Amino acid sequence: MTTLTGIGSTPLSGVGTARWFRPDALELPDRPDPETVDTADQRERFEDARDAAREAIQTARDRAAERVGEDEAAVFDAHEQFLDDPQLVGQIEDAIDDGTTAEHAVSDAYGDAVSQFEGMEGRMAERADDLRDVRDRLLRELLGVETADLGSLPDGTVLLAERLTPSDTAELDPEAVAGIATVTGGRTSHAAIIARSLAIPAVVGVGDALLDVTEGATVLVDGEAGEVVLDPDEKRRESVSELDAPVETERVSTADGREIEVAANVGRPAELDPAVARGADGIGLFRTEFLFLDREGPPGEDEQFEAITAALNAFPGERVVVRTLDVGGDKQVPYLDLPSEPNPFLGRRGVRLSLSAHADLFETQLRALLRAAATDGGGDLAVMVPMVARVEEVEDVLERVEGVAADLEREGVAHAVPDLGAMVETPAATEMAEALAARLDFLSIGTNDLTQYVMAADRENDGVADLHDPLHPAVLRAIDRTVRAGHDGGAWVGMCGEMAGDPDLTPLLVGLGLDELSMSAVTVPAVKQRVGDIDSEAARELAGEALACETRAAVQSALARE
Amino acid sequence: MTTLTGIGSTPLSGVGTARWFRPDALELPDRPDPETVDTADQRERFEDARDAAREAIQTARDRAAERVGEDEAAVFDAHEQFLDDPQLVGQIEDAIDDGTTAEHAVSDAYGDAVSQFEGMEGRMAERADDLRDVRDRLLRELLGVETADLGSLPDGTVLLAERLTPSDTAELDPEAVAGIATVTGGRTSHAAIIARSLAIPAVVGVGDALLDVTEGATVLVDGEAGEVVLDPDEKRRESVSELDAPVETERVSTADGREIEVAANVGRPAELDPAVARGADGIGLFRTEFLFLDREGPPGEDEQFEAITAALNAFPGERVVVRTLDVGGDKQVPYLDLPSEPNPFLGRRGVRLSLSAHADLFETQLRALLRAAATDGGGDLAVMVPMVARVEEVEDVLERVEGVAADLEREGVAHAVPDLGAMVETPAATEMAEALAARLDFLSIGTNDLTQYVMAADRENDGVADLHDPLHPAVLRAIDRTVRAGHDGGAWVGMCGEMAGDPDLTPLLVGLGLDELSMSAVTVPAVKQRVGDIDSEAARELAGEALACETRAAVQSALARE
Repeated sequence: MTTLTGIGSTPLSGVGTARWFRPDALELPDRPDPETVDTADQRERFEDARDAAREAIQTARDRAAERVGEDEAAVFDAHEQFLDDPQLVGQIEDAIDDGTTAEHAVSDAYGDAVSQFEGMEGRMAERADDLRDVRDRLLRELLGVETADLGSLPDGTVLLAERLTPSDTAELDPEAVAGIATVTGGRTSHAAIIARSLAIPAVVGVGDALLDVTEGATVLVDGEAGEVVLDPDEKRRESVSELDAPVETERVSTADGREIEVAANVGRPAELDPAVARGADGIGLFRTEFLFLDREGPPGEDEQFEAITAALNAFPGERVVVRTLDVGGDKQVPYLDLPSEPNPFLGRRGVRLSLSAHADLFETQLRALLRAAATDGGGDLAVMVPMVARVEEVEDVLERVEGVAADLEREGVAHAVPDLGAMVETPAATEMAEALAARLDFLSIGTNDLTQYVMAADRENDGVADLHDPLHPAVLRAIDRTVRAGHDGGAWVGMCGEMAGDPDLTPLLVGLGLDELSMSAVTVPAVKQRVGDIDSEAARELAGEALACETRAAVQSALARE
Repeated sequence: MTTLTGIGSTPLSGVGTARWFRPDALELPDRPDPETVDTADQRERFEDARDAAREAIQTARDRAAERVGEDEAAVFDAHEQFLDDPQLVGQIEDAIDDGTTAEHAVSDAYGDAVSQFEGMEGRMAERADDLRDVRDRLLRELLGVETADLGSLPDGTVLLAERLTPSDTAELDPEAVAGIATVTGGRTSHAAIIARSLAIPAVVGVGDALLDVTEGATVLVDGEAGEVVLDPDEKRRESVSELDAPVETERVSTADGREIEVAANVGRPAELDPAVARGADGIGLFRTEFLFLDREGPPGEDEQFEAITAALNAFPGERVVVRTLDVGGDKQVPYLDLPSEPNPFLGRRGVRLSLSAHADLFETQLRALLRAAATDGGGDLAVMVPMVARVEEVEDVLERVEGVAADLEREGVAHAVPDLGAMVETPAATEMAEALAARLDFLSIGTNDLTQYVMAADRENDGVADLHDPLHPAVLRAIDRTVRAGHDGGAWVGMCGEMAGDPDLTPLLVGLGLDELSMSAVTVPAVKQRVGDIDSEAARELAGEALACETRAAVQSALARE
């Protein structure tokens, strides 16, 4: 039994048979003498390869849309754009006209583009992955190399790879894959995020040690511990099933009887059933961006109404919190013409756009929401706005809601005004929490962004990863102030950041007084199980101890003692 | 008397004679038949124009370095880079080889590049200004058009322009210019910033109405009110001198005797004398970046020692607060190889770099600082670190200071450990202020960055300009917490952001309990004058009222009532 360590990216375990995914090396033949190259023939080969690649991309896109969701399928639209990029196509055609073969022309042109993007950081560097994807598709067509089909792996496969591109991961059949381990990649790499949303156990960034694992070996992937175990012993193999907490469909309470709502974060309709299946008490964050991405224009009122009522119908009698459109920042929507900004996380995001440049979209969304709030038999709709930093913004939102209600009334359309809330993700919102709560029904703390702003550390920048940690006492204090001020203002206070889904932190969060925790469905059972063990008084003491700490290490020790 | 309004960018007034700066229109002749173009001749014309432009850029650079400082002269390095950009040069040479004249080839190639940058926002859009600058220099050479020489304007000129490029402004002789007014531009435009640092009265963004002002008219520029007054009457003209408060070289106290230190922010040695002349009580922020910019490698220990002792010698017996190197974010230093980051303001900046990638530079700087602290006859050195977000960082800094002191002791080099402080500019630092203060001698609140992070609004992004305002109650509450916690922790608490230099806010800041205010030297007299009128008790009441406000408008009303 050998244990390799990496970064756990899906908190699940799985065991199975190692299968290496090594996209066939694409070796180019020698360059022929330009004089001997039939230009017309090479042009035709290039066109044929492009057509075939386009078809393959579209197939992969459809498969991903069905299995994962429109959101992740979007990556293939980028691939199609690269395939048809006029500069790349022009460069390839020019090279062919100068006597280069199609495969060398493709390799040269994409190689230039890849190396340009590779020098960059973060999301720009990921463009290099996309370009490589497209280049390799073209070269496989031109060289007649068979593509390994990730969509039809045998059951019980533990997939090992140097790295997985976004399109590789999106093609995976989650039923067949018991786990994923990769040599490279971080917690926020596309591969990690998609594996998490497919609930495939995954460990990324294992390093070169992974390369020694042989095909056919028995491998256990423990995405919670961040471990890849070769030839796991009986005891370790048994732990796989134990890691998954039993599903609890009823509401849970602390040992002394305080009920804590454990809800799910949902990003697309396909995640509704898994949220129900894992026992979520409702939806604490229903993201509406999927309705706006990968299309030519915004969705209409009716389409939004349908999507919202579908979410309500999945949770009859339970609360479903829908967040209004949250674009800007790292989420771009081409048809909205959002400006490119030097610091997009400090730019026009969320409610800032809804109250200015895209007030029209906001009004349409509010109409759909108020109509959905009047439907019967489903869940109880609640609506929250993202990126609130000012009381003025909430007052503006409330006025618009009133205006939309008056319009619907006049039109004789059935409607109701749902409970309204604000996400608390800016430090400003933590300062103004009581005033916000006095005007609203609830607050929901978004710890990912809140941590980013409190610590002034980009959540996607590995260079400041140690700062981007919600266990820094500064973040805990901002959370504490928000909960207390929110309650003083008469609102309930929830949390919908990644922090809410870590069962090790559940006692701390209960001790801080949070009324609701919302998380990826995959972690709902473990958090529900944890809640039952908690004594409220001990949790409050623990929270007090953590708040008094002056360093992250001290917080960690306090949690460990508990 | 006609009054036009714009954005006041230097809080001074001046009156003089209008002179329009209209860089000669650069009209290109018709494109000749490519067959008739002598390619070799055009190549030579292009090379000659490049040589002449390079020489002109270097001259302008030297003049700017002398008059304004190395920091602002850096823009000309960017110009030289654009002049020698291989892609631009290649494109121009290819076009010439295809039978284009040099002027059309230059105009086409730079036109493409300008339009690429123009589509972007913020600092990228400013690159378009730089490219236009370089293009116009080349075209003037090629077309034999005389350049208006901003360096030799007659005394008493009020310079009017559609817009001023960074290099235009940097060439200005501040002695000759009584004021500047431009049609376009914002508070953070290069032109506005340079005018402020040269203490030239300036109003930017006046709009097209300015275009009607005739050459030779008498114009008053009121950079405080943001007004451009044509044919000002006697009374208004007299107000020019009154606007400038009398210089007070002694320390000032509130009416009831509480002494407030009014210090200057200094960014380069040339600003030391003006700071003394305007009566600053010391230096509250001595930026050390000028030592690191526009060179091939970092400055040595001795060079830094000299620069620091020069600052100390300008203020004998007074406190001089030197900030350790604060690069990253929007401040790039080529030889440091800082990564490009998707959100640089949330990336590796200030002390984050000093404690990681650039610990070597930090050690050298600490050695210079500890040596300077031991010199006699000058000011009292204090040292502060920027971008602190964690107690851990301060503990690390203190350890390194101890280590450097031990090294110097062992080497037998004279040294002393100065007072140490932290800038409070992250929300995290406001949360941890008491713990930071307990370990340090002082805290200095940097309101520009603090506002940016509390409100999650990029200070350079016009799209969120209404959020980037320190009068939002959320920011005031963060400041209040910092002052109280800092005092509880046993430190004095100052402020060195732009907010500190606004005399209208002095009563509020005194009421919040700040011990020191540090600002551009130009505003020191007005703030000192304001302090003398303040009653501490009334100021405390005002601060309490402002802190209880829930909106910026309410804060504004509270201030107006006072």
